[in-house]
Amino acid sequence: MTTDTKPKQAASAGEGFTVGGMAKGSGMIHPNLATMLAVVTTDYPLEPGEAFDFLRPAVDESFNSISVDGDCSTNDAVVLLANGDAGVTRSPATDLAFSACLRKVCADLAEQIVADGEGVTVLAEIAVTGAADDRQAKAIAQRIATSALVKTALFGRDANWGRVLMAAGSAPYNGGYAELDIDRVTLSYNGSVVLERGAPLGVEPDVSGTTCAIELDLGLGSGAASYLTSDLSYDYVRINADYRT
Amino acid sequence: MTTDTKPKQAASAGEGFTVGGMAKGSGMIHPNLATMLAVVTTDYPLEPGEAFDFLRPAVDESFNSISVDGDCSTNDAVVLLANGDAGVTRSPATDLAFSACLRKVCADLAEQIVADGEGVTVLAEIAVTGAADDRQAKAIAQRIATSALVKTALFGRDANWGRVLMAAGSAPYNGGYAELDIDRVTLSYNGSVVLERGAPLGVEPDVSGTTCAIELDLGLGSGAASYLTSDLSYDYVRINADYRT
Repeated sequence: MTTDTKPKQAASAGEGFTVGGMAKGSGMIHPNLATMLAVVTTDYPLEPGEAFDFLRPAVDESFNSISVDGDCSTNDAVVLLANGDAGVTRSPATDLAFSACLRKVCADLAEQIVADGEGVTVLAEIAVTGAADDRQAKAIAQRIATSALVKTALFGRDANWGRVLMAAGSAPYNGGYAELDIDRVTLSYNGSVVLERGAPLGVEPDVSGTTCAIELDLGLGSGAASYLTSDLSYDYVRINADYRT
Repeated sequence: MTTDTKPKQAASAGEGFTVGGMAKGSGMIHPNLATMLAVVTTDYPLEPGEAFDFLRPAVDESFNSISVDGDCSTNDAVVLLANGDAGVTRSPATDLAFSACLRKVCADLAEQIVADGEGVTVLAEIAVTGAADDRQAKAIAQRIATSALVKTALFGRDANWGRVLMAAGSAPYNGGYAELDIDRVTLSYNGSVVLERGAPLGVEPDVSGTTCAIELDLGLGSGAASYLTSDLSYDYVRINADYRT
C-alpha cells in the first residue's frame, strides 16, 4: 500500500537561473533528516562542496520544520544537484538570490509533503513569536506540532487553545521546560485572537477549513520559529495499524 | 463526557503498617507530574517533610514512567498522607520495607491508569536494558513509548520491530540522539526474540493479547529503565477529536 498519493514538485526562477525540486514522503515525517526524499536541481553555478552551505539553512526552515507523526525516519535525504549551465556570473547578490529561490523551493516541497501526509485532513502552521530566542521558539513550535491532543483537536475542527498552551508549557528546553509568562501570551487561530496577554476573549474562531494558522506570541523576546504540521485522524491510525490486511 | 471509566485503587501491607492509594486520570497522561491525580495513604510514621523523600523515587519509576498520549497535563499531583497510626518503631529496615510497599502501590496505580487510558486496547511495557546508563535507558524507553508508529502497530497487533528500533535510534539524549550499536541490539516481544544482536530471526511473535512486553537489550552497559504505555486507537482519536458533539 502506498500512502504517498501525489507527486510533489516545486520550482523558482531567479535572474538567469532556475531551482527545481521534487520530493516524496507521507509517513514517518518528522525529518531531521530521514523515509522522506527530496531532490532539488539548479543550473546555478556552484563549486564542489558548496551545495551544503546553501542547503543547510534552507532545509532547517523547511524539511526540518515539518511533522506528520513525530517519528523520524531512518533514511530521509535532501539532495541538491547543480550543473552550472545557467552561465550567470556569481556575486554576493546572485548568491543571495539563489539562496532565496532554494528556500522557496524547499518550503514549497515541505508543505506538499505535510499536505499529502498519512490521513491528513488539515495542514496547520504553528508560528511562534516573541520567544526568548529562536531555539526556544522552535522547541515550542515543535512541541505544539507533535502534540496528540493538538492534532486530534485539529482533526475535530476545534480551536482548543488550552491544548496549545499545555503543549507550549511542556516544551523541552535547556534540560527543563520552556518558561512562559501567561500574562504575556497572545494566541490566535486564523487571525482571530482567542487569548490576549493571558486573558481569554471568549472568541470561537472558524477552524472548519483544510488549513489552520495558529499564532502564538509569547511576549518575552524576539525569538521566532514556525512548524508545519497536520491533524491526527482516524485514517492515520488505520494506515499505520491496519497495514497487513 | 468522562473517559476515566474505572476506580483505580491499590494497597500493600508491610509488617505492622499499610500503604493504600487511589488515582484518577485517563488522558493527558505523560506525567512529570500533571490531569492525573493520585492519593496514597499510610499509617507508617513519617516526620513532616519526609514524605517527599520516600515519594520521589517511587513516583519516578511509576507515574513518571507512563504515557497514554505523550501530553503532559498541567495539573498532575501525587499526594502522600501519613498519620503514623501504625505505631511501629522505625528503623532503616522498616523504612526500606515502607519504601518497597510505597513503590508497589505507586506502580500498581500507574499501571491501572494506563490500562484505563483513553481508547486503550493494549497495555505495553517497554523494558530497556544494557543501555550506557539509566538516563539513556529512560530516554529510549520514553521515545518508544510515545512513538505514534509504535503505538498504532500495537493497536494493529503487529510486532513491528522496525518501528521500535526507529524510535530507539531517534531518542533525544545529551543534546543529540542516543547512539546505538545495532550489532549488539536484541529485541523481544512477549519473550519471543525477533532480533538477536542485530540479526533478524524471522520470528512472528504472538502480540494478539491485551498486554505486550517489549524488551530491548542494547548490549552497551548496565543502564535500565522501563515505561508503561498504551496503543493509539481509533477510540483515542474519537475521544479527543469528537468531544463537542
